[in-house]
Amino acid sequence: MKVGFIGLGRMGQAIAARMLGGGHDLVVYNRTRSKADALAKGGAKVADDIADACTGREVVFTMLTDDKALVEVAQNGLLATLAKGAIHVPMGTHSVTALADLDKAHVGVGQVMVACPVLGRPDAAAAGQLNLVPAGPAQAIAKLEPLFKVIGRRTFNAGTNPAGAGAVKLANNMVLGCAIEAMAEAFALVRKFGVDPAVFNEVLTDGLFAAPAYKVYGSIIARQAYDQAGFTATLGLKDANLMIAAGQAAGVPLPSLNVYRDRLLGAMAHGEAELDWAVMARDQARASGLK
Amino acid sequence: MKVGFIGLGRMGQAIAARMLGGGHDLVVYNRTRSKADALAKGGAKVADDIADACTGREVVFTMLTDDKALVEVAQNGLLATLAKGAIHVPMGTHSVTALADLDKAHVGVGQVMVACPVLGRPDAAAAGQLNLVPAGPAQAIAKLEPLFKVIGRRTFNAGTNPAGAGAVKLANNMVLGCAIEAMAEAFALVRKFGVDPAVFNEVLTDGLFAAPAYKVYGSIIARQAYDQAGFTATLGLKDANLMIAAGQAAGVPLPSLNVYRDRLLGAMAHGEAELDWAVMARDQARASGLK
Amino acid sequence: MKVGFIGLGRMGQAIAARMLGGGHDLVVYNRTRSKADALAKGGAKVADDIADACTGREVVFTMLTDDKALVEVAQNGLLATLAKGAIHVPMGTHSVTALADLDKAHVGVGQVMVACPVLGRPDAAAAGQLNLVPAGPAQAIAKLEPLFKVIGRRTFNAGTNPAGAGAVKLANNMVLGCAIEAMAEAFALVRKFGVDPAVFNEVLTDGLFAAPAYKVYGSIIARQAYDQAGFTATLGLKDANLMIAAGQAAGVPLPSLNVYRDRLLGAMAHGEAELDWAVMARDQARASGLK
Amino acid sequence: MKVGFIGLGRMGQAIAARMLGGGHDLVVYNRTRSKADALAKGGAKVADDIADACTGREVVFTMLTDDKALVEVAQNGLLATLAKGAIHVPMGTHSVTALADLDKAHVGVGQVMVACPVLGRPDAAAAGQLNLVPAGPAQAIAKLEPLFKVIGRRTFNAGTNPAGAGAVKLANNMVLGCAIEAMAEAFALVRKFGVDPAVFNEVLTDGLFAAPAYKVYGSIIARQAYDQAGFTATLGLKDANLMIAAGQAAGVPLPSLNVYRDRLLGAMAHGEAELDWAVMARDQARASGLK
Repeated sequence: MKVGFIGLGRMGQAIAARMLGGGHDLVVYNRTRSKADALAKGGAKVADDIADACTGREVVFTMLTDDKALVEVAQNGLLATLAKGAIHVPMGTHSVTALADLDKAHVGVGQVMVACPVLGRPDAAAAGQLNLVPAGPAQAIAKLEPLFKVIGRRTFNAGTNPAGAGAVKLANNMVLGCAIEAMAEAFALVRKFGVDPAVFNEVLTDGLFAAPAYKVYGSIIARQAYDQAGFTATLGLKDANLMIAAGQAAGVPLPSLNVYRDRLLGAMAHGEAELDWAVMARDQARASGLK
Repeated sequence: MKVGFIGLGRMGQAIAARMLGGGHDLVVYNRTRSKADALAKGGAKVADDIADACTGREVVFTMLTDDKALVEVAQNGLLATLAKGAIHVPMGTHSVTALADLDKAHVGVGQVMVACPVLGRPDAAAAGQLNLVPAGPAQAIAKLEPLFKVIGRRTFNAGTNPAGAGAVKLANNMVLGCAIEAMAEAFALVRKFGVDPAVFNEVLTDGLFAAPAYKVYGSIIARQAYDQAGFTATLGLKDANLMIAAGQAAGVPLPSLNVYRDRLLGAMAHGEAELDWAVMARDQARASGLK
Repeated sequence: MKVGFIGLGRMGQAIAARMLGGGHDLVVYNRTRSKADALAKGGAKVADDIADACTGREVVFTMLTDDKALVEVAQNGLLATLAKGAIHVPMGTHSVTALADLDKAHVGVGQVMVACPVLGRPDAAAAGQLNLVPAGPAQAIAKLEPLFKVIGRRTFNAGTNPAGAGAVKLANNMVLGCAIEAMAEAFALVRKFGVDPAVFNEVLTDGLFAAPAYKVYGSIIARQAYDQAGFTATLGLKDANLMIAAGQAAGVPLPSLNVYRDRLLGAMAHGEAELDWAVMARDQARASGLK
Repeated sequence: MKVGFIGLGRMGQAIAARMLGGGHDLVVYNRTRSKADALAKGGAKVADDIADACTGREVVFTMLTDDKALVEVAQNGLLATLAKGAIHVPMGTHSVTALADLDKAHVGVGQVMVACPVLGRPDAAAAGQLNLVPAGPAQAIAKLEPLFKVIGRRTFNAGTNPAGAGAVKLANNMVLGCAIEAMAEAFALVRKFGVDPAVFNEVLTDGLFAAPAYKVYGSIIARQAYDQAGFTATLGLKDANLMIAAGQAAGVPLPSLNVYRDRLLGAMAHGEAELDWAVMARDQARASGLK
């Protein structure tokens, strides 16, 4: 398929490389051109600008940092040059409002949008093992299947409303944030009774919570290893804000989200913004008078 | 070992049967005597009263519904007749205060207490597959090892303070309550964007949350199958209250617990007290204007 | 009227003195007898025990510290000796459950109960300027009017259910706790922007919040004068727990209460249990990284 | 003084009229020109555009709906034409970030900014009875005194950081939102015990809470008169969002704010967005199973 790919951060590069490996005709674009070097060696054409990466393409993927970058790409070439009937697939983590607005804009000029956030880290992306959550017109999703196959291990159809895919991604992250805060409270409590945090971590992850979310973050909390930041408090807060906006757009109170967002603010107020977002457990410990 | 066992509900019967199967000398007691029938057939002696189940025993296990039952058993025979140096092992879910008070009482008369709440359902108990969380004097825990081996699959040493074992049990349940409420909020959100709850459940449980807690409760929430109550809202509230008391005793604010406790109260205010405690997802849906 | 009065703390003494001044025939009782001295000089008869303070009285008031004390007084003489048709008026701050249970017990033996918590401090009591909140049978409340007139400035009829009067008292205290926590958050915020807390206090109390609650506590918070405890964090928590129990009994989630209760726990975890309950503002400041 | 005034909504018109009455040389501007008619009759000059209202003025006041309007006015003439050393006084309710950014921009071109949000309704403005909260360079605030005198009854100096004045305004509104939610919870509770809401309203507002905030909103809640919207749920949410942003900018968790914001979302999810924001009491009642 004739594919454009805009946004070559670590995730973008890994996903684009999979498409290239899958034999697709790939044009890539990134503001900092050097990030396209490896893909160029692999056979991708490097576009000079956004328009160049969209013109004549059947599908254009974007993997961008935030809403601002998405809107800029849309306004500076994507909306103007993507062919009628061609599909834009935003894969980044975006607000439901930005996705809904952009969907409307695409539809307004005869283009198609399928939002498709991904679940997984760059190494999963490189191995074609991402979980994909597309939402948009059924026909368009069907057309994208061959591409999804080379980049993902499984596809979860989130319906026909692109904003729904965004909501799934945000909600999944929110459930994680809530799990971390729940652990934060639980560890603070048992520590007060002299329980070894490592033992409590074993109790949790050997039973009901034998899942990556608890194993990864339970271990960080038990060891208080917040300086090995996989995902910082700052990024956690950014995500939480997208979630707050989604809750507002949909009319859904999110009290558990508020709780962990307040912990992130507390951590940031104590100079811990760049520690791992599991640092909410340190904020909880502090609130409990623990050291 | 010479073992006494008081409290023959479903869990108690299953655990006592394992001990009998392990070749231990077992005297059992239950207020409603008929519940001891199966164990009697298996070779257990049935005591006429609490004193009878404690006198001359090296270890007495209790598996009782609540603090009230525990205090009654303690005061109506256990404290008075258990030998010096013998061990009482309360296995029920009790408040940290009740455990601390009882520990003090035992120590005061030269007895030993090892709190040992269990994680697992009656079928796991019957199969000797419980997770055990003992806390108390190290020597006493060591002495109990042979018994723990026939009833559990794994033992997690929660330290020397019996209340710590109670805190672990409560904290584990609290983490579960928080996970259910997080799902409740997440499902409400994605539903508002037209996402099929079953698909969202797949997203969660295929990835970061591939654990029993999410599989069991995600499925209940996705199917809105709250009437198949494994654990009712009423029981969830009872547990939450023990947790609130533990947080107060230890000086630990528990904001996420408060959130899900409020959902349970909301559910109960709508006549849903005897539904599964996952009904907090229905309360969240209601708060979000969903049907 | 023939009045009995049990519980002669500062409030009790002040109220009983008003009744004496109003010309009523008063028998008083207190566990520590010396607290009755002043009233005895004023003409009150001092009872030797609870029964003595109830026998032959038309009305018996109790002003007791907590539910435990109320239950003890009820069981150790009050229920047994109060005449049929006579009225018991508990004035302390009690749980709705304790009031409901005691009401049932009184009715069961042909007695009448009118719960009547009071709003105001001992100096207001001494001046007969309390606000009174009676609830119970209308006829009984009417009969009490002459007594209410000498002890209060205004009577608010809370209905026929005695527990309702208890709920009003608790709810009034809860609204105060919420106001303090709201100020705590607001002061922390403006301090971060370099605003003088004394100025912010002026803004609040000169406008929408020109009321004693804000004037008293705004001033404490602005001056961080938490060591002049009018009402300690410990007492605030005790009250909050009564409120939690009321919310549970009635099926009412109380999220704002939970927020300030968590602040009280945080303060207590930092050794501030005996400071004024406005210390929740210090806990909020701490959570915000302020000194 | 030579004064410019931009933004002639109800508040703006009333304030500008006071300045005119105070004998100041006034040029006014509003996008919809007709709103300037009354002031023109009173002697104000009506500007054709923003630049026209700023050029040659010693002070320019703006009273604008939101940050977006403020930024537009700043960029479309105000920053470009206000004289060096002249003062811009934004009076609207703005985010702390917008105020800080604009302050920086003014300083960058040699202008001065004094943020001065106002407390009070249009009728207070018309009577010159507003409470004013200026923050900015001390000298500039001093220079503004003669103007403040004709429009306000009292001035509260919020320091030298303009964002601080914004924080005070937002914090004051937040304290109000928290008070309404506290009442919401309290009324729901007492209603469950059969207490007449009007009586409870009397209890509150006769004692600790004898202030406009409680009298106005207590009455609305007691009568469930949410359709007489003074300030809608939508506007309450808009304000709450400014507050959330302020808390984030300052690193201050605001759990009580989150609670009432969730109630506003709940109300909006039930189609009550345009009712008075006291409708959070209806959302609380609904959560409590009340009708």
